[in-house]
Amino acid sequence: MMECRESRAMDRGGHVQTYEPTEKTRVTRIPDRGKYDAETVHAILDEGFVCHVGFVADGQPFVIPTLYARVGEEILFHGSAASRMLREVSEGVAVCLTVTLVDGIVLARSAFHHSMNYRSVVALGTALPVTSEEEKMSAMHAFTERIVAGRWKDVRIPTSQELRATTVLRLPLSEVSAKIRTGAPKDEEADYALPVWAGVIPLLQVHALPIPDPKLPANIPVPRYAVGYSRKLAR
Amino acid sequence: MMECRESRAMDRGGHVQTYEPTEKTRVTRIPDRGKYDAETVHAILDEGFVCHVGFVADGQPFVIPTLYARVGEEILFHGSAASRMLREVSEGVAVCLTVTLVDGIVLARSAFHHSMNYRSVVALGTALPVTSEEEKMSAMHAFTERIVAGRWKDVRIPTSQELRATTVLRLPLSEVSAKIRTGAPKDEEADYALPVWAGVIPLLQVHALPIPDPKLPANIPVPRYAVGYSRKLAR
Repeated sequence: MMECRESRAMDRGGHVQTYEPTEKTRVTRIPDRGKYDAETVHAILDEGFVCHVGFVADGQPFVIPTLYARVGEEILFHGSAASRMLREVSEGVAVCLTVTLVDGIVLARSAFHHSMNYRSVVALGTALPVTSEEEKMSAMHAFTERIVAGRWKDVRIPTSQELRATTVLRLPLSEVSAKIRTGAPKDEEADYALPVWAGVIPLLQVHALPIPDPKLPANIPVPRYAVGYSRKLAR
Repeated sequence: MMECRESRAMDRGGHVQTYEPTEKTRVTRIPDRGKYDAETVHAILDEGFVCHVGFVADGQPFVIPTLYARVGEEILFHGSAASRMLREVSEGVAVCLTVTLVDGIVLARSAFHHSMNYRSVVALGTALPVTSEEEKMSAMHAFTERIVAGRWKDVRIPTSQELRATTVLRLPLSEVSAKIRTGAPKDEEADYALPVWAGVIPLLQVHALPIPDPKLPANIPVPRYAVGYSRKLAR
């Protein structure tokens, strides 16, 4: 089972500056790629909005994609997609929540050194259900605003019944690490002489023009946050 | 532990047509979103190239992003990123391999019905290491060609030493399901009268112009597969 303990270094204002790497989160294979500072971890978490949550049920691992939002030193995520997880959740469930941003395909001169540029965060810990109506409302606000900033003021907010039907889990950021690969391929010294193109194909997620709901009256304008959508704006 | 059994329906030519849903893979919450036919599962797997592999070590779930390639009824994936997993792998390791393609953000009239358009595949099973040099070479070929079609003929192929240093795992497609959400938001009947814009912000992954390795001589042209990169072409 998970060990529960403090593994964060804070500044005088109580803000987390670094997450102490543990045996489980330390990047061992290519240590240079490991990052443990809060700024890097937060930036990756705030650019993404889909995570992959791993949990164990009857010895079987499950990995489920779901929406999330970082709020301070917690990740809030939808638990409804993982009903299996929630059968065992009253005292919390051990999870691994991973966020991956794919930045490019790295073409090396040798097949062996082909790689991917990416930024990822792996957060381990015990996820707990958000129970009070007030906290659930606040979580719904965070999901909405972190995914589309400016949206909350326009929508019909959740009823008590909807909040009861919403399963939200919270995972404190404690045992967490980031891993980043950037830049050009790293080839074997002898291979640099080969007449083979090498470099990076950058990949990025973009939005297209919003598609209105066919049931939408024609006189409702498209909001600016939908036309000019960007993960950078959502942060 | 995983139950090991046949759960696929094949046609007369021995091609898998559908994966029998099991208690673990059946989509229960919104059953209409579950798909179990091989065509749908293969199409999602072939459009993606980054998966999230979940496994359990000492009771702790881990979820690691890694590159993969589907070859027939198997998924091949890099195991080197998950050295923890491999300590226990000689007889195979229970994994959940999940691939998620994010297609859009669904803006409903109510906060509660906001959602995501996506296509995902969840594959459960026992991953086994690829051991022979010949099979590893074939796996490296598959990785390279599935990620950038046409690349293999240009690169320096792996040496025996590189193949020994490469950890590749194979997961047979057996207990597998797809889940898809498409189209407009689904709002509560009364909310359709609200003067709130609703619709979908489509999201897609695109490539930018290739960035040459700074160490590349100027006389080596950019290959067509790097300039006109597309996941559709890679399929």
